[in-house]
Amino acid sequence: MARQSAVPGSCYFYYPRLVCVVGVRDDARATTNFAPVTWATPLSSDPPLYGVCLSPKTFTHHLALKTGEFTVNFLPVTEAPLAAALGRLSGRDVDKVRALGLEVEAGEVLGTPSLAVAYISAECLLLERHQVGDQTLFVGEVQCIHAVAEAFDADGVLRVDRVTPLLYLGSNNYVGTDASSATRPEPQGAPVP
Amino acid sequence: MARQSAVPGSCYFYYPRLVCVVGVRDDARATTNFAPVTWATPLSSDPPLYGVCLSPKTFTHHLALKTGEFTVNFLPVTEAPLAAALGRLSGRDVDKVRALGLEVEAGEVLGTPSLAVAYISAECLLLERHQVGDQTLFVGEVQCIHAVAEAFDADGVLRVDRVTPLLYLGSNNYVGTDASSATRPEPQGAPVP
Repeated sequence: MARQSAVPGSCYFYYPRLVCVVGVRDDARATTNFAPVTWATPLSSDPPLYGVCLSPKTFTHHLALKTGEFTVNFLPVTEAPLAAALGRLSGRDVDKVRALGLEVEAGEVLGTPSLAVAYISAECLLLERHQVGDQTLFVGEVQCIHAVAEAFDADGVLRVDRVTPLLYLGSNNYVGTDASSATRPEPQGAPVP
Repeated sequence: MARQSAVPGSCYFYYPRLVCVVGVRDDARATTNFAPVTWATPLSSDPPLYGVCLSPKTFTHHLALKTGEFTVNFLPVTEAPLAAALGRLSGRDVDKVRALGLEVEAGEVLGTPSLAVAYISAECLLLERHQVGDQTLFVGEVQCIHAVAEAFDADGVLRVDRVTPLLYLGSNNYVGTDASSATRPEPQGAPVP
């Protein structure tokens, strides 16, 4: 297929990306603020580090600095409307837990709750942060994970035949995975790093 | 669904992730080394920054430091065997372009070629890097993108009904998206950041 050149910013070349709902405690209001982020990535295996990009303008950024911890929560594709609602509301104005009737689970190692509807959540302790362009990269050390037992196989791989994860495409578009396309081309080969 | 607690590292909670093939020039051998990475993320809108995590042990890490630039290339799901092969081989031992018969396209702004089979590629100038745990985060400023014209809509959103992007699940498992699950829950709402 022929390819054409374009300037940066003319398309979302980096989507689809897994929707990661970041939970941060709001002690002043005795609630937890949950906000969807897709600019997020594992950063290290040992120690296990996971990073989320937050704009300094956001309430989540403000709260994460205060508490020094956060949770990350991953949703099934059926929760696209929830992700959209979490992105539309600001925790500055609204207690999203109450407004959206969210069920939360208390932290086990840290003090920040996670989202019960997530098929997997992780508790992260803020280790460091880096200002990169117009965002701050919050680097969290993963302390503990909470998963729906049947969601992962014995190797820790998501069972996409049982759970369809929610991915973001940009401009408020979402999509899921297609389990029938799952493939394991070279079982004996080294995995992608 | 009931959730159970587990230690970090017991499952790949952060997959699926888009496979990003990083291209780095190998001037000594007059070729380009392509390696699949999934720990990668956009980092900033203005300036447009994209980050890739590379282990200091890898040949790609070594070459990226030498040339100060790289390309990122995104594949359709049909290229899962190519991604697996690129991950299995090391550019230290093999010229992957020759071994796998890869078609490359010369850079337009920078000097690093991209992968012609990619539905979209971006040329990135290395701006900074951060040591984070056992990986190095290479931060590239996006200079130019090259895309299959029909792959993106007028808003720059990937047409998943035309292109099925390749996602990684861990342990050499890959999956694509399901266009029939695409949804836009709140057209008037603010997009996920």
